[in-house]
Amino acid sequence: MSRIEQIRQNVLKKNDLLAAELRNRFSGVGVRVINLVSSPGAGKTSLLEYTLRELQPRFSVAALVGDLATDRDAQRLSRAATKVQQITTGTVCHLDAEMIGTAIADWQLELLDFLFIENVGNLVCPASYDVGETMRAVLLSVTEGEDKPLKYPTIFNSADFAVITKIDLAEAVGFNRDEARKNIHEVSPDLPIVETSARTGIGMDLWMDRLERLSHTRGDLAPLI
Amino acid sequence: MSRIEQIRQNVLKKNDLLAAELRNRFSGVGVRVINLVSSPGAGKTSLLEYTLRELQPRFSVAALVGDLATDRDAQRLSRAATKVQQITTGTVCHLDAEMIGTAIADWQLELLDFLFIENVGNLVCPASYDVGETMRAVLLSVTEGEDKPLKYPTIFNSADFAVITKIDLAEAVGFNRDEARKNIHEVSPDLPIVETSARTGIGMDLWMDRLERLSHTRGDLAPLI
Repeated sequence: MSRIEQIRQNVLKKNDLLAAELRNRFSGVGVRVINLVSSPGAGKTSLLEYTLRELQPRFSVAALVGDLATDRDAQRLSRAATKVQQITTGTVCHLDAEMIGTAIADWQLELLDFLFIENVGNLVCPASYDVGETMRAVLLSVTEGEDKPLKYPTIFNSADFAVITKIDLAEAVGFNRDEARKNIHEVSPDLPIVETSARTGIGMDLWMDRLERLSHTRGDLAPLI
Repeated sequence: MSRIEQIRQNVLKKNDLLAAELRNRFSGVGVRVINLVSSPGAGKTSLLEYTLRELQPRFSVAALVGDLATDRDAQRLSRAATKVQQITTGTVCHLDAEMIGTAIADWQLELLDFLFIENVGNLVCPASYDVGETMRAVLLSVTEGEDKPLKYPTIFNSADFAVITKIDLAEAVGFNRDEARKNIHEVSPDLPIVETSARTGIGMDLWMDRLERLSHTRGDLAPLI
């Protein structure tokens, strides 16, 4: 193992410990934490905007939004959630457990039902960093191409749930949904998939249903209807 | 500076040296090297397919294609170029000068006019790694959103040329071209921009023209007509 690879392993080990602590804290107070990962522009913020707006009347919801620069997403989302905080990572291509811990240090977590973590737009780095989430959802937009699960297997492998986004554009871009599903299941055979459009609302009921039935323990997902 | 940050600096310094050697080699034999960077699914392979097909009758062209896994892109491109080689990076989120040097170790570079390097789909990591290119072109697809230059400034800053892709979908996705151009120029004031569609061919003449007028020295770009 090279020196840089060794240090990387130590960083990941330290992150896993911090993430386990966070996960205990989250489940202790009964807050469900959803980590949204995808490439840039797959529609994380749009999905989140829709989701927060739907949950807001009945639940207490908050969001942490990761980006290299700017607080545009936090501004977009702050209308729909109790608490929204931007984490700017500079040149770092993912969020990690320590960044999350620091961001929520003075939050009253017990007041929350849901915490959404919008990760940095990247199909590589966020795959290796546990942030203590209850559920990791990977987004794949129809405009990105059906081959992305095969080309970025780790992030699909580490996810609990896949959301195909912008399905209203499927025809315009010649999206082959059977091939996309086949490719997702080739890297993660049992990964549940919903097809959605935050613009038209198609499929969003399945996504909302999954969120509401989410248990507080990671991996403990009721099967998708 | 933390220990991991220090090691990262050393890695980058070593990469810069190797990239400078590569660049000398490339310009010595008169091959123009174009490094294509973008997020996953922005259309690097489609742009490249079109480009190779157009150049192939009059020039000797080759391509190196980076991905975490699979050689699908190399297969797609091998019909249109003299030589196509896939570089699979495992979990590494970018190509670097050493990978390029290894891949072309036994090539007869002097026989080539153009070498295209399709980087790993990622808006973060490839920004820091010089691969000895003559020109770095960053792609932004209309489906990704106009805000990406502001959110990933380094990659737009380090590019010599910006290609807006999938412009045929602009209307369907409500793409605001003025805002996109404004955001690109906010992070890189003089960056030349072309708007293209590899599907319909719109704007591809400007891209091809730029390539053909490319000098062998980085940064030495004739102004775009």
